[in-house]
Amino acid sequence: MSNPLIITIGREFGSGGHEIGKRVAERLGIAFYDKELINLAAEKSGLSGEFIERHEQRSQGSFLAGLAASATYNGGYFSPQNMSLSENIFIAQAQVIRDIAEKESAVIVGRCADYILSERENTINIFIFAPMEKRIERVMKVYSLDEAAAMKKLATSDKERGNHYFRYTDRKWGKAQNYDLCINAALLGIDKTADMIVDLAGIAARA
Amino acid sequence: MSNPLIITIGREFGSGGHEIGKRVAERLGIAFYDKELINLAAEKSGLSGEFIERHEQRSQGSFLAGLAASATYNGGYFSPQNMSLSENIFIAQAQVIRDIAEKESAVIVGRCADYILSERENTINIFIFAPMEKRIERVMKVYSLDEAAAMKKLATSDKERGNHYFRYTDRKWGKAQNYDLCINAALLGIDKTADMIVDLAGIAARA
Repeated sequence: MSNPLIITIGREFGSGGHEIGKRVAERLGIAFYDKELINLAAEKSGLSGEFIERHEQRSQGSFLAGLAASATYNGGYFSPQNMSLSENIFIAQAQVIRDIAEKESAVIVGRCADYILSERENTINIFIFAPMEKRIERVMKVYSLDEAAAMKKLATSDKERGNHYFRYTDRKWGKAQNYDLCINAALLGIDKTADMIVDLAGIAARA
Repeated sequence: MSNPLIITIGREFGSGGHEIGKRVAERLGIAFYDKELINLAAEKSGLSGEFIERHEQRSQGSFLAGLAASATYNGGYFSPQNMSLSENIFIAQAQVIRDIAEKESAVIVGRCADYILSERENTINIFIFAPMEKRIERVMKVYSLDEAAAMKKLATSDKERGNHYFRYTDRKWGKAQNYDLCINAALLGIDKTADMIVDLAGIAARA
């Protein structure tokens, strides 16, 4: 396979998925995209409605159904003015993700990248999660929070990520069949989980 | 960890999960349980193996809710007389699974073993699936069926396994967080997926 390798990582907040993605990218010597994506997307979405119009038809699912309905209400044509800011951002992010996948191998964390690249070859989609008690422990440590605050942060994040994923993909977040590999990061720990993903990518490339 | 290693494997029909489980057991030199379980369970419950095979995954509704209701109707205690045959079969299978986990390391395919052993240490829970087109291909080949018949068999199996799992565990079949590892068998193929699980078990044992 000659096109760049893309590893997408969906992850529960507090699972260590972001850290694992970073190490995978380092070990494979490929790019890593997470919050950087938002910045890239922000630049792009600052461009114009014309940009969005040019790319909106590439999105699918319930979001697309919403767009179609919106076009109907407007007498049959699509109007970017009807979209919320988050929809504009999603479209811009999706384009950034496709641009990355065209030009270089990368690990991409979050942003529904698994869905956006679902028809692409040489793409491995991973979902990382961990038992609730381990996530609470990690969030307390990383964000210096007490247990109650960590639990609240986790509940909010799970709800938001699940809703966002469903809204833009029409698929259930964390459903095994949406990915190639789902792993409990607590089983091996962050470092060895990263190793395993690196090994997996190597074997898949030779398969 | 001194107690026996148990690897449970839930799998989509046609994914190759049964074959993968068998190879994992061979490579680790541990026992393998699948249909054998049914026979063991049959002996315990006094029912014939053929009868069990015919009825065990045809159940509907929630077993746990049923148990709770049954306890209520009986003034707060559990009565096996109120249970259906499939419920009796499940209880017998669950006991067989717990007995195995007490005495020897093993790979156990299906039978909600992940749920039955969910509180147990030294247990790795795996879910194996594959894209629909690969499953159709495999079922056509293994069972000498045409495409339509294979698709029908797969749809029936998915429904039955999903219902059975939900009925006895109150959990969604194929939800990533119910397992330690979920893998698309088509990514690496049967042999290399088995290798990966063997490696994983080795790393987890040393962790």
